[in-house]
Amino acid sequence: MTRLIDELRKLPGVGTKSAQRLAFHILRASQQDAEGLASAILNLKAKLHLCSVCNNITDVDPCTFCSSPTRSQRTVCVLEEPTNIAAVERTRSYNGAYHVLHGTLSPLNGVGPEQLRIGNLMSRLSQVDEVILALSPTTEGESTANFLAGELHRAAPDVRVTRIATGVPAGSDIEYADEITVARALENRRDL
Amino acid sequence: MTRLIDELRKLPGVGTKSAQRLAFHILRASQQDAEGLASAILNLKAKLHLCSVCNNITDVDPCTFCSSPTRSQRTVCVLEEPTNIAAVERTRSYNGAYHVLHGTLSPLNGVGPEQLRIGNLMSRLSQVDEVILALSPTTEGESTANFLAGELHRAAPDVRVTRIATGVPAGSDIEYADEITVARALENRRDL
Repeated sequence: MTRLIDELRKLPGVGTKSAQRLAFHILRASQQDAEGLASAILNLKAKLHLCSVCNNITDVDPCTFCSSPTRSQRTVCVLEEPTNIAAVERTRSYNGAYHVLHGTLSPLNGVGPEQLRIGNLMSRLSQVDEVILALSPTTEGESTANFLAGELHRAAPDVRVTRIATGVPAGSDIEYADEITVARALENRRDL
Repeated sequence: MTRLIDELRKLPGVGTKSAQRLAFHILRASQQDAEGLASAILNLKAKLHLCSVCNNITDVDPCTFCSSPTRSQRTVCVLEEPTNIAAVERTRSYNGAYHVLHGTLSPLNGVGPEQLRIGNLMSRLSQVDEVILALSPTTEGESTANFLAGELHRAAPDVRVTRIATGVPAGSDIEYADEITVARALENRRDL
């Protein structure tokens, strides 16, 4: 019991109390449910790996986004984490390919360009028309985008490199936006 | 006492309880303070009015923004309310003129183009190079911006009409942005 609690505590957001509650739930659950959970955990680690093209987490290689015949493989949307793909897919307005960096540059935390998965992005540039840097407008996201833009321009001057807009969020009032957001919204203004 | 409570209750966000508390505070205050408050209220109404050029609330006409020699009067930033000027000024990145509409189109609430202050914007177009529509990316803000863009293009085809960017706010994660904001951020992407 103590061992399971210790293992559960390693999960994000699970403290000692939650771990105990989860452990007791598993104790009271049927043998079948306990085995189902254990084998699902093992299965995940055995079957899932990173797509060799885009670094998305997948059980087939290349992943469904990279092998889809209905998606344009000539536009690549670069994201920080695999979970960001869901955020872009929810818009129902993007029909290109993806590339997952698995992180952002963060020198203070020891994350340099070598720690990011950039290699397979560079090697597919000859088949690409546009790279959209959809990194978050945070300090790390911005510096990663600037670094990548430089690398991409150097490696493939003909590939268009774009950055998603920073601005006032949809449905929100300009009055409640912070000054950096308003400044960027003015700077990134577009012609009507 | 009842009369003052009734008058105070007309203020936004002041209910009966708050009005009573305010009234008792005024009752206990010195004669000087009570007279100061009363005369400040009268003064406000007597002295403040709308700038004849930009409709900003001002005590001089034209207002300090419109008469400033260091601000470019050839770029006009169109805003919904006078308070929005502070939001743009906080960015320290805008040095042009303003125009305040005092509202947005809202047909359901009986606000049509006639209810907005558009006339003096149209009459100054010959002295203007660019009109930035800095209306909030809400339903009303968007429809007002689209309506105004049409009117401006018709009245002065040479004046550049722009719209502030809708996108992920600065410092925020793409993961927590709603799908419409992410869709707009992708749509409004800019070249790097």
